[in-house]
Amino acid sequence: MDEPFRHRLRVRYHECDPQGVVFNANYLAYCDICLVELWREVVEGYAGMAAKGIDVVVAEARVRFLAPLRFDDEFELRLTITDLGTSSMRLEIVLDRDGQAVAEAELAQVFIDIESGEKISIPAEIRRALEPHAAEGVGA
Amino acid sequence: MDEPFRHRLRVRYHECDPQGVVFNANYLAYCDICLVELWREVVEGYAGMAAKGIDVVVAEARVRFLAPLRFDDEFELRLTITDLGTSSMRLEIVLDRDGQAVAEAELAQVFIDIESGEKISIPAEIRRALEPHAAEGVGA
Amino acid sequence: MDEPFRHRLRVRYHECDPQGVVFNANYLAYCDICLVELWREVVEGYAGMAAKGIDVVVAEARVRFLAPLRFDDEFELRLTITDLGTSSMRLEIVLDRDGQAVAEAELAQVFIDIESGEKISIPAEIRRALEPHAAEGVGA
Amino acid sequence: MDEPFRHRLRVRYHECDPQGVVFNANYLAYCDICLVELWREVVEGYAGMAAKGIDVVVAEARVRFLAPLRFDDEFELRLTITDLGTSSMRLEIVLDRDGQAVAEAELAQVFIDIESGEKISIPAEIRRALEPHAAEGVGA
Repeated sequence: MDEPFRHRLRVRYHECDPQGVVFNANYLAYCDICLVELWREVVEGYAGMAAKGIDVVVAEARVRFLAPLRFDDEFELRLTITDLGTSSMRLEIVLDRDGQAVAEAELAQVFIDIESGEKISIPAEIRRALEPHAAEGVGA
Repeated sequence: MDEPFRHRLRVRYHECDPQGVVFNANYLAYCDICLVELWREVVEGYAGMAAKGIDVVVAEARVRFLAPLRFDDEFELRLTITDLGTSSMRLEIVLDRDGQAVAEAELAQVFIDIESGEKISIPAEIRRALEPHAAEGVGA
Repeated sequence: MDEPFRHRLRVRYHECDPQGVVFNANYLAYCDICLVELWREVVEGYAGMAAKGIDVVVAEARVRFLAPLRFDDEFELRLTITDLGTSSMRLEIVLDRDGQAVAEAELAQVFIDIESGEKISIPAEIRRALEPHAAEGVGA
Repeated sequence: MDEPFRHRLRVRYHECDPQGVVFNANYLAYCDICLVELWREVVEGYAGMAAKGIDVVVAEARVRFLAPLRFDDEFELRLTITDLGTSSMRLEIVLDRDGQAVAEAELAQVFIDIESGEKISIPAEIRRALEPHAAEGVGA
């Protein structure tokens, strides 16, 4: 495999709940931010995607919470594409704080036509641009 | 004057921060929810507004925080229109928990044409529908 | 089995993203709201739980997004306990809008001691109170 | 006067609403993020504040919305202390995108004792650390 896509974030105060830890739903928001950055690299951002008439929607999300993130914690998201289908992809995102995996997320994303809302094949150029972040054996 | 428009809410867990109180920005979200309910009564909701080609945007917001709201607190929002101009209105929202004002908000809203984004005059029927919640002397 | 625990919600404006649909992370927030209501019924709320020295944390969450929820949509959450272990439980929440399942969530929750942060056995009285919402064969 | 305190942010996707612009409440969240960074510089962060037994709470907030911020916009927050009282301070935050002020916020903050919740005098060292970002004539 090549290299996971990496993005760093810091926990904001209002992302934490009265337990003093990041509220569980916000982990999905963090994953979304990481995806936005992936698209920035791969296809000039969501704008580049939209310009091609493509939208990407989440079909499924799964998060395992391993250790709490707290206010002001810095952490890294490491994204790896684990499956690259015709019109969908699966990816894994590890949230790592100082070498400790604090959460692991799996997402299934579907590529759709902005106009019709129907599934479309992932364009070859996007497929190629994603490949560097695909797990071994996950081909274009 | 007539009667303030009233709406009741309960504080959600994730609206609270590590201090155990509602995060300050969420008071504006509460006001927005109250406005949505006002439009529901007055003009069949935002959808009714959009159907008329009208959008309403916030030009200014001010909140005085008097006492903290906490998780699971129930409170009432009481909205009064304090000024009804040609294309804008000002309103006051008191957030009341068990007879205690915990916050007071003032909002300035501008009516705009959805297409052009330009200010428009508040349609007479909306003006009339708002009047029952206007402070004394604030006319149609 | 007995009866799922039910709670109704309406989509708030700011829970929707520029696509006009509920942002994916907010489905987990909806599930959390439903859980708060479950605890209200079962053990006099989180406060009742805390009074017993118990906290409940999410260990895993999974959401399948079947159809988009939009601004102002009303929907019902139907929660069923699918596994009741010694110190943890699994549950399924179906989000239903007008008879259509728009999302399905699965959550794993762990009961911990507030002081130590260690796993504890689910107290018998909570176990009994949860039973009416357990799937068939999921015993106390 | 000296120099405003500066912090840069980029608009996240889920901070935008179905109008495609940043939801109004999120401007207060942006201001809070800027304040967190101010405290990081001035007093080793909220943690440094808490270590001194001090908490800072928002007493009043006001925002003028001048132009919409949109998804992925980068902007700078420029914070100036406009009044430094015995136990409270007022500050102004300008949100600037490419040289255009898109919003102006004014906040009143009160320093309180973490234990008692009572107002306290701003410690001299914090006062001195804030001075470089105070408007002309706003003294220590």
